[in-house]
Amino acid sequence: MHGIVQMINKGFLPATLVISLLTCLPVAAQETGGEVARSFRETNGARILREYSELLSIPNVASDSAGIWANAEFIRARLAERGVESRLLTLPGANPIVFGELRVPGATRTLGLYVHYDGQPADPANWTHDPWTPVLYTRSMEAGGEPRPFPEDGEAIDPEWRIYARAAGDDKAPIGAMLPVLESFHAAGVTPTSNLIFFFEGEEEAGSTNLDRYLESYSGLIDDIDVWLLFDGPVHQSGRPLLSFGVRGVTGMEVTVYGPTRGLHSGHYGNWAPVPGQMLANLLATMKDDDGNVLIEGFYDTVEPLGELEREALARLPNYDAELKRELGLARTEGEPQTLPERLQLPSLTVRGLSSGGTGQYARNVIPPTATAALGVRLVKGNDPTHMRELVEAHIRKQGYHIVREDPDMETRLAHPKIAKVTGGDGYPAARSAMDLPILQEVVAAARRAAGNDDVVLSPGSGGSLPLYLFTDFLDKPILMVPIANHDDLQHAPDENLRIWNLWYGIDFYAQLFTMPGG
Amino acid sequence: MHGIVQMINKGFLPATLVISLLTCLPVAAQETGGEVARSFRETNGARILREYSELLSIPNVASDSAGIWANAEFIRARLAERGVESRLLTLPGANPIVFGELRVPGATRTLGLYVHYDGQPADPANWTHDPWTPVLYTRSMEAGGEPRPFPEDGEAIDPEWRIYARAAGDDKAPIGAMLPVLESFHAAGVTPTSNLIFFFEGEEEAGSTNLDRYLESYSGLIDDIDVWLLFDGPVHQSGRPLLSFGVRGVTGMEVTVYGPTRGLHSGHYGNWAPVPGQMLANLLATMKDDDGNVLIEGFYDTVEPLGELEREALARLPNYDAELKRELGLARTEGEPQTLPERLQLPSLTVRGLSSGGTGQYARNVIPPTATAALGVRLVKGNDPTHMRELVEAHIRKQGYHIVREDPDMETRLAHPKIAKVTGGDGYPAARSAMDLPILQEVVAAARRAAGNDDVVLSPGSGGSLPLYLFTDFLDKPILMVPIANHDDLQHAPDENLRIWNLWYGIDFYAQLFTMPGG
Repeated sequence: MHGIVQMINKGFLPATLVISLLTCLPVAAQETGGEVARSFRETNGARILREYSELLSIPNVASDSAGIWANAEFIRARLAERGVESRLLTLPGANPIVFGELRVPGATRTLGLYVHYDGQPADPANWTHDPWTPVLYTRSMEAGGEPRPFPEDGEAIDPEWRIYARAAGDDKAPIGAMLPVLESFHAAGVTPTSNLIFFFEGEEEAGSTNLDRYLESYSGLIDDIDVWLLFDGPVHQSGRPLLSFGVRGVTGMEVTVYGPTRGLHSGHYGNWAPVPGQMLANLLATMKDDDGNVLIEGFYDTVEPLGELEREALARLPNYDAELKRELGLARTEGEPQTLPERLQLPSLTVRGLSSGGTGQYARNVIPPTATAALGVRLVKGNDPTHMRELVEAHIRKQGYHIVREDPDMETRLAHPKIAKVTGGDGYPAARSAMDLPILQEVVAAARRAAGNDDVVLSPGSGGSLPLYLFTDFLDKPILMVPIANHDDLQHAPDENLRIWNLWYGIDFYAQLFTMPGG
Repeated sequence: MHGIVQMINKGFLPATLVISLLTCLPVAAQETGGEVARSFRETNGARILREYSELLSIPNVASDSAGIWANAEFIRARLAERGVESRLLTLPGANPIVFGELRVPGATRTLGLYVHYDGQPADPANWTHDPWTPVLYTRSMEAGGEPRPFPEDGEAIDPEWRIYARAAGDDKAPIGAMLPVLESFHAAGVTPTSNLIFFFEGEEEAGSTNLDRYLESYSGLIDDIDVWLLFDGPVHQSGRPLLSFGVRGVTGMEVTVYGPTRGLHSGHYGNWAPVPGQMLANLLATMKDDDGNVLIEGFYDTVEPLGELEREALARLPNYDAELKRELGLARTEGEPQTLPERLQLPSLTVRGLSSGGTGQYARNVIPPTATAALGVRLVKGNDPTHMRELVEAHIRKQGYHIVREDPDMETRLAHPKIAKVTGGDGYPAARSAMDLPILQEVVAAARRAAGNDDVVLSPGSGGSLPLYLFTDFLDKPILMVPIANHDDLQHAPDENLRIWNLWYGIDFYAQLFTMPGG
């Protein structure tokens, strides 16, 4: 066997063929899927890590066309080797989608499996190692981990080890976990209980700007998907597996208010010329109080109420508020005693930025001509981005402001005592699927089986925003977000990493998912 | 005479001697002072411009020690040539004061004549010509003026010509106007009616940081001064001569409020983590309304009311509000229908700067850890800087804030729901002298005689700040600010200039001042 492994390592034999030789007993029963995959990772852990490392070593920034295509082709080939009919979908000016189909004769259910294979840009200067040269550590760097060689076949693998590389957590981890499952099933003849559609995006970190076009242009390929499962992001802060039934939407705007046409000496004109920083503060203060209540009329009116199941789930969510407050140096939070998960079920208004004149070393004795606020608005189910922006604008008008889209000309200035330029906008709505949908409950059950207990965290909706409305509203399909990466994977940051435990959990989860009852 | 002028120009003869030859008739009568100076400038205009140009060509930025000393020595020598007993006062680490005395036997009145010979820094890249290479223009650049050679002796001089150079207006103009007056008096034997003490500072544009030490260290030299006349700044916007009986004081602070210890994802934490930009806006909104009323308790309580004469003067001040509003693109001002001069008689609170997170291209989906406002406070007579800052701080406390002087540590953060760091401070009080003081009324009369009519503008107090409390409070002497430079002299800016009319007016004014009745 040692000889065969060497031949694999040297590339003399395709891994698929070898695995077929090693595990030559076809197994049919669905209930054995979890067993097969687990046994496979226990036997082939070292190779799984090496192959994952191979995937991680291909640079995958969305703007790096060569790297992106190399990733796409690498993944497509790995899927094909495992029996998945795979190809690259393309559109002009867009990064390719790695698309795969594993159709199961007689299956009555089709799962859409979304992953993105691109990663955040990385400046090597800020990393301990090159971002695309994966390094194995004995545990996290913060916990005092040390680099160590990748294991030899048969060597015991500590699940606390971590692989450091860009995209190790976000979002190649699901690919690294799926491939071994597919390989083990392929080799052992395990048949999934659902049709599987693999849909791996290559520009999520660049804003998924072509996702809608892909979904529209290739609708024929995805029409029969019953549920979209989105494998992205980290699990719960507690380390427990997380399943999230929704995400918030997002919109926003910039508001600029105007004082004099030029900066004025604050001595010669102070107490006479309107001060834009003061005007802006007065305007913003009418929008939200210190307790976190947005005072804009209608801001909460379109919120779609949570169902019974969602409210129960919220109540069961771990309460990490006290710990978070300690960590973040906060003696209070908005909307107390409501918890963080509860607060995320409401739209939010955030002053993301303020600027006017200068502060600190840049402060001058001047009444500045303008003051600007960057406002972010997070949306929940029921909020329409355009309508929410209109509410904010109506509120600004109610404070006596004339709204413009460009810097006002002299005539406009002289005609209106208060002028606010409101720009920006766009955004997209929230997405949420009902927790009681049977197909989603099946996925939850699969996660529970993989975790070996009931201890998974169910969230009615996460706080972050992703354009999942494309699936729920545009395609009219339910969604479920199922992250597998460790919560401290430093995604988007230097020294991103994946904890091996989470890779193993992913393998176990996909095995359960692909063989869940029904279908 | 042509030969003599050539000899002067070539430096063969000292100007003083030549003038004595030219105007060899001693005149004693005070009432002829104005005549003598006017006749002198009409005859010697070209030379006056050349000599002023010579003064302007010596770089005079306060930090340029060599330039400063060259200026000081140049001016001292010119004073000495004109019969003024002059010397340089020095203190370690300070730029010298050009000090001169012209004691008049029997005079019962002593005038302190303050000018500063240093100028603002100038970046030649932003100037049409080198800042310290004076260039004569046929009128202002904005009005389409063209450069022209300095005039030959006897050539007619257009009072609309302008000399472009750093400090041409601010603040060498009074020196350029005084020297010819002294020269003409010296030559013609005109005796001033007051003792004259010349006190020319060399670091006003660097904050007059040693002025208090000078006034204290050399108190014996200035003890008998009855009134300090401060020759600085531009005349009224209308172009009419201005006499101002006071200036505002100034103080200020920076206020920083705190959210989470690090920037937080506005999706994952928005609606839960306190947003410092919102907190700051809410705080500032409690301080001042959109009509310009400061809402801080006690803010207006210590204002020393204006006297009858001051109120009358205010009412008589030209109302330039409508024109200013048009120019500045303002459809409203704070405190309408009160006028700009009226508003300057009250303390002001100005948001000079705001900063938190980013706006525009720097906006991010983040709840920033802090938000900062730079607040400027202008003071009027009666306001104590420390007391006014305390009022602002008491107000901040009343809004539930715990005030700190340094960024709060974790313990402080966790102990206080709202924390504001308040830093900065210092500043100095306003200064104002009563308009009905006889000696000040004499100076007003001198200005009216120089202007040839009643059309001078009397202001109870200007909006800008200067540390004139050193004269009014520390020395306990009345002050009067008597600018002579054109209002559009672009002081502190590139292409600073002096209109020749204003130089002529300055000459006429000093002649009247030095020979005013009484004394």
